[in-house]
Amino acid sequence: MFSFRNDYSTGAHPAVLDALCRTNGERTEGYGLDLLCRQAEEELLELCRAPGAAVHFLVGGTQANKVTIAALLRPYEAVLAAHTAHICCHETGAVEHNGHKVLHLPSPDGKLTADMVRAAAAAHTGEYTVAPRLVYISNTTEVGTVYRRAELAALRRVCDELDLLLYCDGARLGSAMAAGDASFADYGALCDAFTVGGTKNGLLFGEALVIVNPALQPGFRRCMKQQGAILAKGRLLGVQFSAILQDGLYLSLAAQANRLARRLAEGLEDLGVPLLFPAQSNQLFPVLPDSVAEALEGEVSFELQERLEGSRSCIRLVTAWDTAQEEVDGLLALLGRLLQ
Amino acid sequence: MFSFRNDYSTGAHPAVLDALCRTNGERTEGYGLDLLCRQAEEELLELCRAPGAAVHFLVGGTQANKVTIAALLRPYEAVLAAHTAHICCHETGAVEHNGHKVLHLPSPDGKLTADMVRAAAAAHTGEYTVAPRLVYISNTTEVGTVYRRAELAALRRVCDELDLLLYCDGARLGSAMAAGDASFADYGALCDAFTVGGTKNGLLFGEALVIVNPALQPGFRRCMKQQGAILAKGRLLGVQFSAILQDGLYLSLAAQANRLARRLAEGLEDLGVPLLFPAQSNQLFPVLPDSVAEALEGEVSFELQERLEGSRSCIRLVTAWDTAQEEVDGLLALLGRLLQ
Amino acid sequence: MFSFRNDYSTGAHPAVLDALCRTNGERTEGYGLDLLCRQAEEELLELCRAPGAAVHFLVGGTQANKVTIAALLRPYEAVLAAHTAHICCHETGAVEHNGHKVLHLPSPDGKLTADMVRAAAAAHTGEYTVAPRLVYISNTTEVGTVYRRAELAALRRVCDELDLLLYCDGARLGSAMAAGDASFADYGALCDAFTVGGTKNGLLFGEALVIVNPALQPGFRRCMKQQGAILAKGRLLGVQFSAILQDGLYLSLAAQANRLARRLAEGLEDLGVPLLFPAQSNQLFPVLPDSVAEALEGEVSFELQERLEGSRSCIRLVTAWDTAQEEVDGLLALLGRLLQ
Amino acid sequence: MFSFRNDYSTGAHPAVLDALCRTNGERTEGYGLDLLCRQAEEELLELCRAPGAAVHFLVGGTQANKVTIAALLRPYEAVLAAHTAHICCHETGAVEHNGHKVLHLPSPDGKLTADMVRAAAAAHTGEYTVAPRLVYISNTTEVGTVYRRAELAALRRVCDELDLLLYCDGARLGSAMAAGDASFADYGALCDAFTVGGTKNGLLFGEALVIVNPALQPGFRRCMKQQGAILAKGRLLGVQFSAILQDGLYLSLAAQANRLARRLAEGLEDLGVPLLFPAQSNQLFPVLPDSVAEALEGEVSFELQERLEGSRSCIRLVTAWDTAQEEVDGLLALLGRLLQ
Repeated sequence: MFSFRNDYSTGAHPAVLDALCRTNGERTEGYGLDLLCRQAEEELLELCRAPGAAVHFLVGGTQANKVTIAALLRPYEAVLAAHTAHICCHETGAVEHNGHKVLHLPSPDGKLTADMVRAAAAAHTGEYTVAPRLVYISNTTEVGTVYRRAELAALRRVCDELDLLLYCDGARLGSAMAAGDASFADYGALCDAFTVGGTKNGLLFGEALVIVNPALQPGFRRCMKQQGAILAKGRLLGVQFSAILQDGLYLSLAAQANRLARRLAEGLEDLGVPLLFPAQSNQLFPVLPDSVAEALEGEVSFELQERLEGSRSCIRLVTAWDTAQEEVDGLLALLGRLLQ
Repeated sequence: MFSFRNDYSTGAHPAVLDALCRTNGERTEGYGLDLLCRQAEEELLELCRAPGAAVHFLVGGTQANKVTIAALLRPYEAVLAAHTAHICCHETGAVEHNGHKVLHLPSPDGKLTADMVRAAAAAHTGEYTVAPRLVYISNTTEVGTVYRRAELAALRRVCDELDLLLYCDGARLGSAMAAGDASFADYGALCDAFTVGGTKNGLLFGEALVIVNPALQPGFRRCMKQQGAILAKGRLLGVQFSAILQDGLYLSLAAQANRLARRLAEGLEDLGVPLLFPAQSNQLFPVLPDSVAEALEGEVSFELQERLEGSRSCIRLVTAWDTAQEEVDGLLALLGRLLQ
Repeated sequence: MFSFRNDYSTGAHPAVLDALCRTNGERTEGYGLDLLCRQAEEELLELCRAPGAAVHFLVGGTQANKVTIAALLRPYEAVLAAHTAHICCHETGAVEHNGHKVLHLPSPDGKLTADMVRAAAAAHTGEYTVAPRLVYISNTTEVGTVYRRAELAALRRVCDELDLLLYCDGARLGSAMAAGDASFADYGALCDAFTVGGTKNGLLFGEALVIVNPALQPGFRRCMKQQGAILAKGRLLGVQFSAILQDGLYLSLAAQANRLARRLAEGLEDLGVPLLFPAQSNQLFPVLPDSVAEALEGEVSFELQERLEGSRSCIRLVTAWDTAQEEVDGLLALLGRLLQ
Repeated sequence: MFSFRNDYSTGAHPAVLDALCRTNGERTEGYGLDLLCRQAEEELLELCRAPGAAVHFLVGGTQANKVTIAALLRPYEAVLAAHTAHICCHETGAVEHNGHKVLHLPSPDGKLTADMVRAAAAAHTGEYTVAPRLVYISNTTEVGTVYRRAELAALRRVCDELDLLLYCDGARLGSAMAAGDASFADYGALCDAFTVGGTKNGLLFGEALVIVNPALQPGFRRCMKQQGAILAKGRLLGVQFSAILQDGLYLSLAAQANRLARRLAEGLEDLGVPLLFPAQSNQLFPVLPDSVAEALEGEVSFELQERLEGSRSCIRLVTAWDTAQEEVDGLLALLGRLLQ
């Protein structure tokens, strides 16, 4: 069965797995205080050109978002996020569980703009409202769109203007960097904090959090520990990140996934299948007649995004670093038959 | 200066103040465990025809909402509320502070319908979403509208159908009962829990919480204590509620406020002033040219609700049990001059 | 029945009640933003000689402790307190409910010393422990003892040395000031924050929080609102505090309660009744044979503090501003008979 | 350098690593909903003879404790634990971070007894105290002692008597089972919930939580997700547990670590070195002159447990499944020389 369900269905890229096997017998400090983590940290900071930043390795994306946001905010401070954001609808209220309201800003394409941020801030000035303090974006977004550098810079400016923090959830940062024009160094320059996602781009698991803003760094490891987010054998995270950052592997895996998504998007266009969101990265959202979507289910693994009126369904198709071109072509051929 | 700013600008109704003075020297148990509270509880339960209900007296409305909602929910459970609800935008994220997400349902008139509830529940079934569990309504609503008995009964049915709890914030329950057709007994029959607001209807302070559903009663006082919501001299609450519940005073004060609001609404209609929400209780939301709203500011105390396009403003005018008819007539005369 | 149960069994001192009645009809801003609160704030700051301090009025002591401590700490920071402290055993885990661990330091007399603080800090330096940050003391303590100025100054020094905050729960601050040598101004000089308790010294309810340290002041009202701790008719608190601060009434009421406790302590000494803690303020802890304690129960209202070995009980006897000398003498006479 | 620092210094046992490599390319469902996890669950439930139990795989021990305890308690409910417990002093207040007080019960050997539980429950019955609800034990304990079956059964009885839950943190459950007389099936019969630790016994990471009590099972995965505790590639946990549960490997690795600890304990006894706690499992706590402890530091990796009076230090020595007998003998030889 072809799988377009997500980008974390398999294990690790061979280079990552090799590194884990190679270092398996080494005895190291626990809790990420080992040299393997330090090395990965240095490599990452060099890529980000942010020598004063702090790096922390976390196991998963929800954990990274939850711990980071709670560490950065005072109790009454709130988060601004697009209504499609992972923290709004895919983390079982993790941010609220730590006491912070997330203000859902309706967004047509999963992205926030400076104007949206400004309007939300202006609407929350009274003592009886939460105080917006952190702008949460994800890049790529949950609907596959990509912030470009100019858009990130505009958000940075509005954050500076309004004394807000800019945090980027980079669960798919590789895909965003491969698809857009913002580099590691741009994130290091524009964000207060951001994550570099490993789980969806070749690791067994792992997200690297980069806290650029020095004022936000103190006490973070205690926040992690308190929330169960320090891995005993922390070196597993350092080893994996070091492996994936070698020789541009992180970006090339993401580029490969994007390339196949592009091929898929073109094929869908040829078939006259509309997309609910622009095809910019490794997630596509085609709109199909319900009958076709149902017929597809037995043959292809994917997720339903949303039922639409007119007996249509939007489905989500995701390519990964290990998607085979044959899968893309096979899916297109299958769709071609079903749509006749 | 005429005051239409809110319904809690002054102290207590004389009968309430008298009762406080009369009992001032009595020595009683603390923490609401005294006979004066027990008496008020019995009076209230008789009105509600809910002999198995539990009554707790709290100092304020945000406190009552916060403690009650947290006591009723498991960590991952969420609240459904109209986007205009007090808990959505006037409590500085108090519900989220206790870890629970509030799902804001857009509502044209401040009310929820069974369909809204059903749609929100259907959209939150995955493990990665919060689980809707409690339907929060306020009656009267924050925009002055009133749920009628049939509407409450429809919400009760959808809650039964979906295993949800129905909680009514009755900060202005007196006004709702005086304006609508639902009685104390209807709330006792239809809600899992509801408050009877005193602060906005003749008390110095105080909200009586009625927990009808027996499954929700255990442990509640410890929840209150843990959240700083047990008043040391709890008898102050019992004394005040007993006083206001005598001889129908609670309803007659609310009816008086509604009556003057009705007179004001008619006057506004005569002046051709549109209202943003239907005039149903003691809160009115007239739409005025910005210039008129500004001119009014020096003469009348009120709150700005919202800037509207076309250089117009919606303001909020609130009558209270102690509003004088001269104030209403004076305001109308003033508006008549300003609108010429 | 004589009552020595606590110091909050009755209503308010007549001067306080008069002030409430006199201002009852005034229309003011809500939420403590009114002129009556401003006036009480100014009076208090002048007494404390702390013009840069912020004053907030809260309804009760648990609420004041809970909101203040949460506002001052980051998530992983902890509180140091004597094991007898109110926050340790009489607030249903209110501080923990907001996420903060309270480290219970065993104390023979309800007081902390600089050495205890230093030892506890030294024992909590690893990332896997909470980080002590706030020293909680209560004056008078829960066992009736009193910190003197030199003791407070010693705690201030250790806090400065270790970068800790010093917070004093002054639920019985009047009694402490009347019994000891530390004045309002000393608290203003030595604490980062402290409360001035009204509930137990002549008010219907109310604690005034003084935040001396400017770094701790921003955002506090939002913390209050978020925790349901802003009273709608906030002026009730300002009115009461203004009344009780006039003409030294706050201190003279406390001194009166202390005086009767002293008389009671002397009588107990004459009867050969030992005390579990030194008699320093308005709370006494006599140790009685169980049979005597039981016989007392029908005649006098009091609380059992602790069962002791040897068929003895320690009970708590509290005098208040309105305790009558006849009650003290009557209790002593009764005990004299029972102990024969 | 010999390492006795802890039992999680290296990677995984070869059989575990092989299983990860072998399944690396498989495409599975995410989030632990895959067949590999189902298989591990079935194997574990069969061992525990608890067919109605629920199994959840978590990444680490603090996470497992934190999520489980919060899921099982209402807001005002508290945990009873020995003062040496991991949740008391090695998790940065993780349980309190979720709002629950942990009552530290002084224990001479890291274990709780039924009497301790009964006394703590009796001391917390008022509304102003937290309500003890969950008894937390760890087996082996943090000081290396082991609960035997009869002790566990006694705790079960007191829990039944007082309506408390019994939770066992089994971070070192293998060591406890290898050293004592309680089997998987005993835990399945006696606990409401317990963990089977993998991190310290041959896995890269992973703790299996077994929730035996059906009343505690609903909603648990949402609690996990909300706290960032569902691993995207959850199958990694199932694969590892299946591997370690084959052919008794889990117990044999633990037995090997215990065996070397026993050899080490005997050697220490021969050298006249006292132990602070009885030698029962893979953690030993010898007391050494400070000078010896310091001299050891350059040669052997270990942790300082506690400074003692008389210029002595208690250090912690931990053996693991991959400790070499040469290390034990080498350490003993070294100590022999230093102690001469």
